[in-house]
Formats: sequence, C-alpha cells, structure tokens
Amino acid sequence: MNIAFLGLGNMGLPMARNLHNAGHRVTVWNRTLSKAEELRADGVSVAGTIADAVRGAEVVLSMLADDHAVSAAALRAGGIAENLAANAIHVSCSTISVALSQQLASEHTKRGQRYVSAPVFGRPEAAAAAKLFVAAAGDGADLERCKPVFDAIGQRMFVIGAKPELANVMKLCGNFLILTTIESLGESIALARKYGIDAHEFVDFLTNTLFGAPVFKNYGAIIADERYHPAGFKMRLGLKDVRLALAAAEAVDVALPAASVVRDHILTALARGMEDLDWSATAKLAAENAGLK
Amino acid sequence: MNIAFLGLGNMGLPMARNLHNAGHRVTVWNRTLSKAEELRADGVSVAGTIADAVRGAEVVLSMLADDHAVSAAALRAGGIAENLAANAIHVSCSTISVALSQQLASEHTKRGQRYVSAPVFGRPEAAAAAKLFVAAAGDGADLERCKPVFDAIGQRMFVIGAKPELANVMKLCGNFLILTTIESLGESIALARKYGIDAHEFVDFLTNTLFGAPVFKNYGAIIADERYHPAGFKMRLGLKDVRLALAAAEAVDVALPAASVVRDHILTALARGMEDLDWSATAKLAAENAGLK
Amino acid sequence: MNIAFLGLGNMGLPMARNLHNAGHRVTVWNRTLSKAEELRADGVSVAGTIADAVRGAEVVLSMLADDHAVSAAALRAGGIAENLAANAIHVSCSTISVALSQQLASEHTKRGQRYVSAPVFGRPEAAAAAKLFVAAAGDGADLERCKPVFDAIGQRMFVIGAKPELANVMKLCGNFLILTTIESLGESIALARKYGIDAHEFVDFLTNTLFGAPVFKNYGAIIADERYHPAGFKMRLGLKDVRLALAAAEAVDVALPAASVVRDHILTALARGMEDLDWSATAKLAAENAGLK
Amino acid sequence: MNIAFLGLGNMGLPMARNLHNAGHRVTVWNRTLSKAEELRADGVSVAGTIADAVRGAEVVLSMLADDHAVSAAALRAGGIAENLAANAIHVSCSTISVALSQQLASEHTKRGQRYVSAPVFGRPEAAAAAKLFVAAAGDGADLERCKPVFDAIGQRMFVIGAKPELANVMKLCGNFLILTTIESLGESIALARKYGIDAHEFVDFLTNTLFGAPVFKNYGAIIADERYHPAGFKMRLGLKDVRLALAAAEAVDVALPAASVVRDHILTALARGMEDLDWSATAKLAAENAGLK
Repeated sequence: MNIAFLGLGNMGLPMARNLHNAGHRVTVWNRTLSKAEELRADGVSVAGTIADAVRGAEVVLSMLADDHAVSAAALRAGGIAENLAANAIHVSCSTISVALSQQLASEHTKRGQRYVSAPVFGRPEAAAAAKLFVAAAGDGADLERCKPVFDAIGQRMFVIGAKPELANVMKLCGNFLILTTIESLGESIALARKYGIDAHEFVDFLTNTLFGAPVFKNYGAIIADERYHPAGFKMRLGLKDVRLALAAAEAVDVALPAASVVRDHILTALARGMEDLDWSATAKLAAENAGLK
Repeated sequence: MNIAFLGLGNMGLPMARNLHNAGHRVTVWNRTLSKAEELRADGVSVAGTIADAVRGAEVVLSMLADDHAVSAAALRAGGIAENLAANAIHVSCSTISVALSQQLASEHTKRGQRYVSAPVFGRPEAAAAAKLFVAAAGDGADLERCKPVFDAIGQRMFVIGAKPELANVMKLCGNFLILTTIESLGESIALARKYGIDAHEFVDFLTNTLFGAPVFKNYGAIIADERYHPAGFKMRLGLKDVRLALAAAEAVDVALPAASVVRDHILTALARGMEDLDWSATAKLAAENAGLK
Repeated sequence: MNIAFLGLGNMGLPMARNLHNAGHRVTVWNRTLSKAEELRADGVSVAGTIADAVRGAEVVLSMLADDHAVSAAALRAGGIAENLAANAIHVSCSTISVALSQQLASEHTKRGQRYVSAPVFGRPEAAAAAKLFVAAAGDGADLERCKPVFDAIGQRMFVIGAKPELANVMKLCGNFLILTTIESLGESIALARKYGIDAHEFVDFLTNTLFGAPVFKNYGAIIADERYHPAGFKMRLGLKDVRLALAAAEAVDVALPAASVVRDHILTALARGMEDLDWSATAKLAAENAGLK
Repeated sequence: MNIAFLGLGNMGLPMARNLHNAGHRVTVWNRTLSKAEELRADGVSVAGTIADAVRGAEVVLSMLADDHAVSAAALRAGGIAENLAANAIHVSCSTISVALSQQLASEHTKRGQRYVSAPVFGRPEAAAAAKLFVAAAGDGADLERCKPVFDAIGQRMFVIGAKPELANVMKLCGNFLILTTIESLGESIALARKYGIDAHEFVDFLTNTLFGAPVFKNYGAIIADERYHPAGFKMRLGLKDVRLALAAAEAVDVALPAASVVRDHILTALARGMEDLDWSATAKLAAENAGLK
C-alpha cells in the first residue's frame, strides 16, 4: 500500500520503519526533517511538506504529540484534509481528545474522505518490536482496509466500535487505569516501607499473586528501584493524559474521582520540582508525603 | 503435626480439611459446632472449647471474622494464650488490624509462646483447592516449623519479614489494591458505557493487553456482568478492610488518598441500599453516578 | 462619562440602570435587543451593534456569560478592540478565565487602549441595589478613572493588583470558596439530619456562633429549606466556575483538592438529573448519598 | 449550686473559675494537682480524688482531653458514675465521640443519674471571658437545671435536641466546618500567592465581603501571617477531631468526602514534620504543595 506517515517521535519512527519493512511504500514527514534521515537511508521516501506526503497515499497515519499538533497537521491549510484523496483513510494513532477526534471524523466525512481512530498501547520498545496493541474504531470496511497496516505495527488489533471517537475513549480509559495503578502502588509501597517492608519484596509478592499484569510489574519495578530518571514518559505527559480523560468524562457529565486524585498529585509533583521525572514519580511524592527520606 | 484449627467459616472449613487430608492430626473448634459436623465425619477431632482444642497442639491456626473475634479467642479467659503450650505456635491467618497483631505478638512472647502472622490471599474456591497465597511474617525458625502447614493450605508462601505485623500490613495493602482496582474499573467502565462502548469488550481489551492479572479479570467480569448478587464478599467487609488499611496508615502518619475515595464510596453504597451486594458494587454506584440506569 | 455597557443579563441590566441613574451617558448593547427596551424607556441609548455602542465611549463595561461571549464581543471583527478609542478603557466585569483576561490585556495594550479587570461579587438583588463588591485590577491611573463607574454599581471597590488578571484570580478564588462552603454545609447537614438534628436548628447554631457570614447564612438557609428550585444560579454555572478555578490553578501547577471534590459532585449532580437546580443542590446529592430521602 | 469540675486544662481552668466567680460552690479535681493551686488561692475547694469531688455535687462538669480520659474519669472504679448521687447531673463538655456519649447516657441512666452533653465552642480566651457558645442536648428539665451553669461559662446556650449525643454530633460538625474552612483558605491563598496576590489583601477582600465570619477572619489572619507557632491548637488535635467526625459519620453510613481530604492533609502535615504547628498549618502544606517556599 501507499502509506504516508506523519510524526517521527519515539513512537512514530519505529512504527514507520515497521511499515516499510513489511513491504509498504512509505513516505514520511516530520516537523524537523533531521529525524527522517535514518529512514531515508533505509529507502523510505521523505517528504518536505504534509501535502507532498499525503497526496497519492491510500492511508495516512498520524502519530503526533497532542491535540495542537494533530489539529494543525490535519485541518490547517496545506494539511491532511486539504490533500487527502477521496476515499483515502486518515488513521489517527495519537493520544488526542475525544472532541478533536469527533471533529476530524466530521471534517473528513464532509470531504468524502475516511477517518479511522487507532490509538496504540505500548512504549517505544513495543513499537520497535511491532508489539503494540491497537485500539481501532471506525467503519468496518475501513478497518478491514487498514488491517495490513495494523498487522505491520502491532501484535493485535481490537475493534472498539463504529464511531471513531470510541477508540479515543478506550485509550484515555487505558491511560487512566495506568495512572490509577501507579497511584495505588505508590501509596501502598510508601505505607509498606514506613513499616519496614522492603519495596522489592512487596512488589514481588504482588506480582506473583493477584497482580501479575504488565502494568503492575513495570511500574512496581520502577517504583521499587526509584528509577524515575531518565523518564520513559515525562510527568507533564501524565498531566496531559489525565486532563484528556477528565475532559472526555466532563463532556458526558461523568465524574472520575480517582482521576481527580491523580491529577492533584501530578500537579503537586510538578510544583515540587519533579517535571523531568517519569510520570510514575507520583510514587516519589507519596513517599515524601509519608515522611520517607 | 498436632494442629488446632479455630474458625470454620467459608475459608476456614476448607483450610482445616486440607490440613487433615495432608495427614496432620487436626482438632477443630468453631463458635457454632454444627459447622464442624462434616469434618467430624471425615475423622477430624472436634473440640467443644478453645481450651480443649489448643491443649497439646504444636500449632494453632486461627481464621476468624475480625479483630473482635480474634481478640476474644486469643486473649480472653479460656482462650489461646491461656492454654497454648510453651514454644507452641499461634498462626493467625485472619485479616486483622496491625495493632491487634502487635498485641498478640507481645502477649504470646510474654508467655514463652510463639506467634506467626500468616494472612492468606484467595477466595473460598482457592482455599478448597489448597491454592491460597500465604503472606507470612515472624521468626525464621517458627516459619520453618510452619512450612508443612502452609504447604497443605496454599500454593506458595512468601516471607514478608521477621516482625509478625508486617504480614498484616502486606495483607491490608493487598486488599487496598484490590479495592482501588475495583474503583478504577468501576469509574472507567461507567465512562466507557456512557459513550456507548460495551462493558465486556472494554474488559476484554484491558485484560488482553496491559492488565492481564486475576484482579482485573475477576472484577472486570463481575462488573461487566453486573453480577453483584449473591455477594462473594459483602460490601460491609470492604468497609472493614479499607478501615483497617486506613488505621494502619494513620498509626504511622501516612495518608492514603485513594483509600479515602474508596471508603467514601463504600459508605455511600451502603447508605444507598447496596449492603447485600458484593463489595465490587461500588462500580454500580459509579454507574448510577454517571446517570446510567 | 460616556459609557458603553455590553450585556444585559440578570446582572448587567441593573448595573447599566445604576450607571444611568448616577448621571452617566450610557449606551447599551445586548445580543437580543428586546432586553434593552425597558432601559430605552428610561432614556438610555440603545445601540444595534457593539461598534455603535463602543465608538465615542470613554469606558466600555462588558458583563457577558462566559469566555466564548466575551472573546466574541471583544476580539472579533466589529468588536470592542476594533472600535475602542485610544486610551479609552475596557472594563471587563464578567467571570472569565485568567487566560482570556491575559489575552484581553495584551490585545488592548497592543492597540493603545486600556484594560481593567473588575469582576463583581453579589447576586442580582445586590446589583439592583448598587451593593456589589468590585474586585478591580489594572493600572492605578485607569482604576482612578473608573472610580465613578464602580461607585455607581457597587458598595465598595477593592484593588487587587496592577496586573488585570489578578482580579480574575480573586474572583475565581471567591467562587471556589463559595462552592467549598456549600459542599461542607451539604455534607455536615446530611450527617446531622441522619442523626435526627433539625437542619434549621443546625444552621441557626452555626450562623450565630463562628460562622456568621453571608455565605453561610444564604446557603445554609437554602439547604435547610431544600429550596433548590427555581435556581438562583444553575448547576452548570457551578461547573463552569469550578472549571475556571481548576484551569487557573493548573496553569501555575497548583492542585486544588477541595475543588476536585466539588467538581466531581457537580458532575454527579448533573448526571443524576439536577441540571435545573441551584448549584447548591450538591447538598441534595450529599443528602441522597447519605441515604436520606 | 454545688458543682464539681473535673479537668483543669487551658479550657477547664477558666471555666471553673467563672463558675466560682458566679457564686457557685465549686470543687475541682485535676489529674495533676498543681494546676489547681491558683484556684485554691481564690477559695475554690480542691479534691484529691474524683470520688471526693463528685460526692455531694448537684452537677458535675467534665472537661477532659479525649475519649480515653473521659471514659476513665466517668466509668472506672472510683469514677463519676460510681459516686454521683441519684438525680444529680453529669455535664460532659469535652469533645468526645458520639459512641462514648451514648455509652455515658446509658450508664448514668442505669444508675438513676442524669446526663447532659454540652460541648463548648471557643478558644481559651473565650473561656476566660465567659464567652463560650454551649451546644447542649439532653432532657429538657435537666437542661433547665443546668442553665445557671451555662450562664456562668458562656455567652449563649443552644438546645440541640433531647438525645445527649446530638450535641456531640453538632460539635463534631462544627469542628469539621472549621477544618474544611482552613483547607479551602489554605488552597485558595496558595493559588492567589502563586499568581502574586498578597495574602493579606486576599483575606482582607474575603472577610469584608461574603466571608465576614470569625472562622474566616481568625484563620485567614493566621494563614496570611504564617503564624503557625506557637500552636493554639496542635495538628494532632486536628487529626483527633476529623477522626471523630469520620467515625460518627461512618456509624450511620455517611461519607464526608471533604473530611477525607482534610484527614489526608493532616496526616501528610504530620509526616512532613508539622506536628508542633497549629492545625491550620495544613495551609502551609498547601503552599509547599504549590511550590511556594
């Protein structure tokens, strides 16, 4: 397939490479072109503008930082909507707001274009290994057409529903659950440590009994090791994610009290100088709040 | 070994039977004797009083409802402390407060008796299958002596530390994590449903990606099915557990904001008539609070 | 003075009338002109467009619903910024975001115009009686020029600082304190009622001892009377206000845990059908959550 | 009247003196007798035991530190219940749990004695000036008999109901409202300061507009001055009070989310070394959490 790939960050770069390796004709674009050089060396086409990348593509994947970046790339003059062929598909993989996803659906539909929302779960290592989980939503036929794309970047695709924004709701709920798990781990490890239980033994017990899921293993290890730097995912990105979850919930009059607790703690962590730490450093805040060193 | 087993509830009965089946000489006691009859038929000795059960035992296991019951059985006239032989071991498996566990340690030590704290994780089915997880804390030699006991009732024993109350801290932290997981699942499933995502598909996605642990699978299924009745574990037991966790934390000046949220929701669930439902029905409260029927 | 007044809602109409009564030459504008008719009868000039109202004015007061309305009136083509004379003052009395207030300051300054932020405290009765409290911020000389305006609409003006947005911060903090007071009253009255204390006697005790301020008296009476309808201030306006407070705090990395609690309860109240009730009906939610009918 | 007064702390000492000054025959008792010496010099009788103080008294007032002290003084051998004459009245002024108040009512009734619950509002200066507010509950005739007592110690007595424990509920609700007011002031002052608003001007605005009650004035001044030491009321007493409020609410299945927030912050303040500060130093915690020095 002719694929355009927009956004070559920690996640986008390995995703684009995997699409190329799977035999697709991939043209990439990135705001700073230098990032594209290593892909060019592999034989990937590099476009100087979004328009050049998008024209002629059957599928355009966007993997950008936030609402601002996606909105600019998709809806401004010279952007995706202006250049995408009728019936071609824009697959949005970024973590964006439900509201923007709804707007993209409407704008593309208006132009006879297709829109699929397909945010991904996994950290950069998973992206490199083509082991991402894809939460996809959109028209059934469109999802079918995108299957080779999803096969090339992920280990499994889940259909969340026919309305594209549902995949974004799913993504935000997933991140909400990661953040609340970090919060609960942080609080309980602080309590256990204060009594004198070793953090590693605590996590070992949990993850070998009822809590043997990656989310407990990964973050339990980071918290027990106090390995918050360098950040895999910076604190301010946690704020962004919890803000998006709260906004999605507010739009349908739903309270998320556990998210409010997380949000308050992320803001406090930021105010107390943890900006450069991993978002799981809310556990460091919990430890400090417990009076631990 | 000569073992006394006190408390034949949903958990205690299968635990006592497994000890008998493993070849130990078991004498049981229960507040209402009728519960002991089916064990008597299997050849287990039944004692009419705690004193009769405890005298001559090398190890006494207690598996009772709460602090009140354990304190009465252990410390009142005619109780364990009064009748336990020097150097024999009281193994407390109940979910009790850290404070009571500390008191038991002190009372038994004063009398030249041994005390091991060994709360268990698992529901009645796991107890029947001898698949409990045992979180044990106490003197190393005592734990060694108890090994055959733990082997007979559980699939694995974890040593939490030398101070017996640490096992109770671990147990309360584990229950705290179960309750916060239920809370987060309840909130996020309510949000997803409000947008139109099917609850079963939501849980299916989660438990096949980052959240593939028993705690997410079991409670995700209950919440998606809205299967809160009959209760596996009643709402008021959830209140007891979160109260114990908060008390253990308060004793060492530690705040547990996530536990406060859970506690508030359990109280609200009780006030709004969910007393007979499973403790995971805080998810039903979350759905009602989201305006879902 | 030549004064333009934009926005003739429950608050704006009496404020405009008081300016006219104080002897100023007032020209009013409102999105729906019918609201202006009773002022026209009193001899107030009515403009058909913002431009007509603003041209020639020394001071323009805006008292509009929200950020959206203020931004449209001030910054769009044909709006205040385009038509305000150099050195004339835009006095923004609306409850708007700190971010918009900063933007207005910057846009007016750019054009050689003056900007004063002056949100007001008080309900419509206070506006009618010229008893509003004005929280004003801006350049000292500008505030001096506005003094006759503030004298005509309020009982007292407080200078909050030289940066206009500080008055908005003050306003949002004031509304935050009203909302948290309502929350605390609601929770405590529910508790007292559950024990059998009469709500009126409860409020009587409080407001005659340590809590004798208007905020306790007004809302204590509403809650004790369960007088939530007709709404003086609808629930969704409470959501707007708490959202603005949280956003202002988030912009400077400050958590407001008490505001998070209020926000969660307002959303729950909305989801459970209290949209048309007064914002103090979070106390009705507290009562329902306590199991009171 | 013949009055026994038990407990000569910061509050009890001036209360006992005011009863003496009002012409009553007062016999005092205190755990450490030295405190009684200055009263003895004024002609007050000093008893060496509770029994000596209580025998012959028509009314016994107790003003002691907590549940533990009141329970010991009232219910142990040699205590109030054992020595109080039939039909004489025990007036409990201490801040105690609703549960203990219920127990006292039951124990005194069983012995043909009378019990009135009459916790007081006010700090030591108010006690010295006989300006306390008394929240009294009990049998109407008993309250009538106690009127001269209340007149001598307070500026006004409020009848809360016929069941004595209702006065304790009222007291705990009052303290809850003080604590939530401190919390809200602390959060909003931290926010205002972060934007650059002067804390004193902030408080000045509030207390001259909608928030002109003693609770806002007193604590607003303390927080603006950062005058947390010496403590008028130490942090751990705040923890006691919020714990009593939460326990009273839990006993009737009522959640108090605002109290949960306060409790979490008091625990964090204690863990972070604020044990010797005034309970309003949760505002110092709010400032630190906002990144203010």
